[in-house]
Amino acid sequence: MRAIDVIQRKRNGGELTPDELSFFVDGYLRGDIPDYQAAAWAMAVCLRGMSPAETASLTEVMLHSGTTLDLSALPGPKVDKHSTGGVGDKTSLIVAPLAAACGVLVPMVAGRGLGHTGGTLDKLEAIPGFRVRLSLAEFRSVIETCGVAIVGQTDEIAPADRRLYALRDVTGTIDSIPLIAASIMSKKLAVGIDALVLDVKCGEGAFMRNLDDASALAQAMLDIGRALGCRVQTLITDMNQPLGHAVGNAIEVAEAIATLKGRGPRDVESLALELTARMVRMGGLASTLDAARSAARGALTSGAGLARLRRLVEAQGGDPSVCDDTQRLPRAKHAAVIRATSDGRLSRIACRTVGEVAQRLGAGRETLASRIDPTAGVVIHKKIGDLVIADEPLATLYANDAALIDACRQLLTTALEVAREAPPPVALVQRVLETAP
Amino acid sequence: MRAIDVIQRKRNGGELTPDELSFFVDGYLRGDIPDYQAAAWAMAVCLRGMSPAETASLTEVMLHSGTTLDLSALPGPKVDKHSTGGVGDKTSLIVAPLAAACGVLVPMVAGRGLGHTGGTLDKLEAIPGFRVRLSLAEFRSVIETCGVAIVGQTDEIAPADRRLYALRDVTGTIDSIPLIAASIMSKKLAVGIDALVLDVKCGEGAFMRNLDDASALAQAMLDIGRALGCRVQTLITDMNQPLGHAVGNAIEVAEAIATLKGRGPRDVESLALELTARMVRMGGLASTLDAARSAARGALTSGAGLARLRRLVEAQGGDPSVCDDTQRLPRAKHAAVIRATSDGRLSRIACRTVGEVAQRLGAGRETLASRIDPTAGVVIHKKIGDLVIADEPLATLYANDAALIDACRQLLTTALEVAREAPPPVALVQRVLETAP
Repeated sequence: MRAIDVIQRKRNGGELTPDELSFFVDGYLRGDIPDYQAAAWAMAVCLRGMSPAETASLTEVMLHSGTTLDLSALPGPKVDKHSTGGVGDKTSLIVAPLAAACGVLVPMVAGRGLGHTGGTLDKLEAIPGFRVRLSLAEFRSVIETCGVAIVGQTDEIAPADRRLYALRDVTGTIDSIPLIAASIMSKKLAVGIDALVLDVKCGEGAFMRNLDDASALAQAMLDIGRALGCRVQTLITDMNQPLGHAVGNAIEVAEAIATLKGRGPRDVESLALELTARMVRMGGLASTLDAARSAARGALTSGAGLARLRRLVEAQGGDPSVCDDTQRLPRAKHAAVIRATSDGRLSRIACRTVGEVAQRLGAGRETLASRIDPTAGVVIHKKIGDLVIADEPLATLYANDAALIDACRQLLTTALEVAREAPPPVALVQRVLETAP
Repeated sequence: MRAIDVIQRKRNGGELTPDELSFFVDGYLRGDIPDYQAAAWAMAVCLRGMSPAETASLTEVMLHSGTTLDLSALPGPKVDKHSTGGVGDKTSLIVAPLAAACGVLVPMVAGRGLGHTGGTLDKLEAIPGFRVRLSLAEFRSVIETCGVAIVGQTDEIAPADRRLYALRDVTGTIDSIPLIAASIMSKKLAVGIDALVLDVKCGEGAFMRNLDDASALAQAMLDIGRALGCRVQTLITDMNQPLGHAVGNAIEVAEAIATLKGRGPRDVESLALELTARMVRMGGLASTLDAARSAARGALTSGAGLARLRRLVEAQGGDPSVCDDTQRLPRAKHAAVIRATSDGRLSRIACRTVGEVAQRLGAGRETLASRIDPTAGVVIHKKIGDLVIADEPLATLYANDAALIDACRQLLTTALEVAREAPPPVALVQRVLETAP
């Protein structure tokens, strides 16, 4: 078999066999196939697509490219949750401990911020001392003691995905539904989960701008799950405004903790409870979805979820006292408030722009080498449709570098529109897709 | 400007600006843009195509990536001829000296064999001593003394095309009409020609299998010519059987010399005269195409063409006595004859297979490092439609390695079909396309 023949078959719209995919991906990881051939192949996949069978084979090759975790000896269902990336999406910080408090084992492999979207790992690292780089042995041990652990993809987990992802990032080949789906699923499946709840973000602030694309990505992941024996349920949720109010790292941790205390924004709480309920139901820990919803709410109101987060933070080296007093999280030296100039209703939030402003303030990375300012970010005080009174604060910018605030202030101002009438409300959960049981 | 943005624009089907193309191609040549980004870009071009304006810009960037030759001080029209690659196509060896004998200056930048097709440079190197690697200064000096010179692409001529071509060869991105057209035209235009006659091969033995693809390639080159101020005329010619009888290197040189002596196969002579006439007419050396055809035929029958080849061979270091006695060309140690097993008409020659057999016998390269056996090749004694009598020789295989002949004999036998009836004749010149004068 020759790499060039595999590239040409994909280029001509052919369907690659499992053998061809394994030859190509393993060869690339070993260094037998050079970057330039992998780049040409990735572009051909972007423009020609992949069948469900091909996508499943690619996922399988990538997940077996490294060590896989076998958690079958641990009693209880292993269920993870994944979001495809949004603005202000801190639900993982709430859902993971809540689900664990309900008896689900949550071995979560999370990601970094990407472009205008935030990442769970960056948020957790805003907690002083928190370590997201655990070995697989440490990861397993934290799951055993806490029922939940959240780590980054190490060299052990799906290394072929890591290599390919880094190459795609610099060759304009990120934007491919089969490649995105295989990348997510290979990492998730490598840690031995039984089921997965996916939150596919959809809208102006998401990678998938419309319901068709979001549904296609959801379907691709459902297909992989079906092929590789992992039950998957997907919620497509609205990302035309940030989730909650805070967009950043430390400020999102604070909002997540507030939510676990029952004092979070309504959208954050509602989505976190729904995702948790789906995990509980898929884990077989409730006989109906409604019973699972009750269990999730119970874990929130009893404080069991917050207690579980405290244990998790401590087990991964972080300062657990932030759970009691979020003032112990790092705080920005500088802040600036944007105020309303007229009465009305908040009619539009340019969600992607809000994410970009947060990134520029220091909450995200421009390049892989950029350092994150954990205190930086934006708080949007209103949700779309909320009443606005002239001179009221609409948003606050936070950063340790005052010049960055000055540079971003105008852009954020243009991202917030006030009108006489509120637009029609949009459902947060737009569609649910699941594999047949 | 960032390389990734250029890649993504092409990936999304956008039209790249001259600035973007120059940034990308020059950056690649300088080493600022790595192979893997160029590979992703090339694949995006393959699958998204390029507009005529983009293709012309790319050609211009590539032709200016190296030294360009200015022949304007030399009196007389500078006209070249190019073929897109076929089996047994030795017309350059005939056309270049014939046109020079008619007063055209022919600065020919020729190529090597590629896959199942032969290359003018490999054929010329079958002449003992012949040097195809001349500096631009030597190239110019041979043109001054002989009116014609034939060289390979050096590092001086369109180096960006060389780099990109080598990358495309290993990334499955050869097969793209705009990239093929820009590659050919950048080399041709770098040596300062006024006009170009293109022979686009079409059929089973060519890269363009059908008339639509061949016309698209022809049109792409006409468009480049129009944009960059070079008159272009294109003949689309049949390549469903080898041109002439000989397919190899030394044996094709012998057939070309025979043609210049008026003893060549009818198809070779006819195509060579037509191409020469077009060059003469485009060079303004005849007032009508018919007058140009007379001039071309005159140069053949007078022996002026052969005399010009003799001067060219001598000027480029080769042994000119081969022009008088082709027995002085290197000859294979081994030969084997394939005979007809029944009476009838030769009904089909699997043209690509004939080219592949010649390549395997040693006339072409498997990899860039392969060495060519100048004596190796195949002679097909009949043309399609010719009468065949049982036991008559249909083909002869030549090589210095007898084992290769044994290995190829059966494959060549299956490439030749004899039937009761001859198929309908096919015109050698299928279509002529030209830029408006």
